[in-house]
Amino acid sequence: MTAFDQATAIWPAGEGRYEVMPDDRFAIAGAVNGGVLLASMLRAVLDSSPHPDPIATSAHFLRAPRPEPAQVEVAWLKHGKVTATARATLIQDGRPVLESTVTTGALSEPADAGGLSWTGEPPRLPPIEECHGIEDAAGPRPFSGFAKQVDVRLDPATSGWARGEPAGTPEMRGYFQLREDRDPDAYLLALAVDSMPPVVFGLAVVGWSPTVELTWYMRARPAPGVLRIATRSRLVSGGWFDEEAEVWDSAGRLVAQSRQMALVGRGSASRGGDPPNPPIAASRRGVT
Amino acid sequence: MTAFDQATAIWPAGEGRYEVMPDDRFAIAGAVNGGVLLASMLRAVLDSSPHPDPIATSAHFLRAPRPEPAQVEVAWLKHGKVTATARATLIQDGRPVLESTVTTGALSEPADAGGLSWTGEPPRLPPIEECHGIEDAAGPRPFSGFAKQVDVRLDPATSGWARGEPAGTPEMRGYFQLREDRDPDAYLLALAVDSMPPVVFGLAVVGWSPTVELTWYMRARPAPGVLRIATRSRLVSGGWFDEEAEVWDSAGRLVAQSRQMALVGRGSASRGGDPPNPPIAASRRGVT
Repeated sequence: MTAFDQATAIWPAGEGRYEVMPDDRFAIAGAVNGGVLLASMLRAVLDSSPHPDPIATSAHFLRAPRPEPAQVEVAWLKHGKVTATARATLIQDGRPVLESTVTTGALSEPADAGGLSWTGEPPRLPPIEECHGIEDAAGPRPFSGFAKQVDVRLDPATSGWARGEPAGTPEMRGYFQLREDRDPDAYLLALAVDSMPPVVFGLAVVGWSPTVELTWYMRARPAPGVLRIATRSRLVSGGWFDEEAEVWDSAGRLVAQSRQMALVGRGSASRGGDPPNPPIAASRRGVT
Repeated sequence: MTAFDQATAIWPAGEGRYEVMPDDRFAIAGAVNGGVLLASMLRAVLDSSPHPDPIATSAHFLRAPRPEPAQVEVAWLKHGKVTATARATLIQDGRPVLESTVTTGALSEPADAGGLSWTGEPPRLPPIEECHGIEDAAGPRPFSGFAKQVDVRLDPATSGWARGEPAGTPEMRGYFQLREDRDPDAYLLALAVDSMPPVVFGLAVVGWSPTVELTWYMRARPAPGVLRIATRSRLVSGGWFDEEAEVWDSAGRLVAQSRQMALVGRGSASRGGDPPNPPIAASRRGVT
């Protein structure tokens, strides 16, 4: 069993309640990565769902999740033939930490539903050997936490910020996989959609960029292998920025989409090209 | 007072409850447009919010809303200095019809927050005089319902479906305003983000395309005047499609973004180029 599967395990406690254990192997500075928490919550939702796939998950991040015991409460709002919708709340010390709503359904093969199919262009990436690991940007600290679990390799065209040469555009492209051998599924996609460095790093704003809201859609069950991810922002303004991500599988299919609203690096933000320290993707969740 | 403001009015009933009256002036085939319902719910949330702007609103559509009395229940999950988050549920006959979560905050002027600002390209549209009203696609029926309230003018490059000549790409571009004289605000943006014909019309799939989930972000307080909207899909597959929208104001600012997951035209779907009948945008919400 991988660290990721251990970190996202659930223990049923009856009446729609589950015990979970936010795992400090996915935490930095005391806050556990939100994607890992969402994966735990999806396990709880799918445990009692009449449909197999988490089609649409929306999540509002309320408080910093700590690596301590927590509970997930699942309440079903609708059980339909095509879709079902549940509210799932992550609770620590009696307070909601992460509020999500999940609509489940079945991802048919494209040949179903009359065969109507249309798809946009996948991201273009150089070979993985030419891409840069995010751990390279972590500076002199011991290689630990999120970057020890997740292998993200950035297209050099979007990793200039780590070398003090930000590209000047809010976008990232790269490869994603766990360092342990594990095929992607719905739970890993929940992690993947928010695994890249914040797009504002491309504008030389390196620091704490807490996510306020994130919604992601699962579009297909991913093929085994490395995932490709492209993110971009459309507007950075007034201290807020949006970030959207597309995740493509090894078979060349768009398997997940996300969009989040986040706050531009606060407190520790630097406007220089300094590499972030500690490693980045796990430092995105926090109290606002 | 405009029909839109009447249709989205709320009556406080104490303890976070509000009476609302879904309005058949915004209904077609018995279902009230979801954007109008979201606007009502945002009024209820902002009535007790510590912050002025609905930064992030996520909504899951559970059942078809009818033009009959309904209630909105607002429960606050967090009151923070920068953001606050509420759950708002629209209830009819004791059952949840629309489940939303709203994070409020303050949209600073771009000069705040260190002045960091970056924006993508606005949509390019021909002059409004050269665009086509959606009511032109409504066929021989009396001009009524949604299209009687809302003035949407489509770029001819994306309205070919109404002439039996679909463009073959899932995108729409056009202008949006109420037929009555009323400046845009947060409530009107909630309507605007889902006011265009479904993008799959561009693929010659004209019919009922129920939205399952929609999340929208408010990015700036809009200037008076006509709004410009661009929508697109990235993947139509297996009976599902995503649709994202950008709304730009008359001052050339990106004021709202949305993304939704919807089901490809069902039941009444036609694969020909037949114009939809009844008018389209109001027929998007339904039971799944």
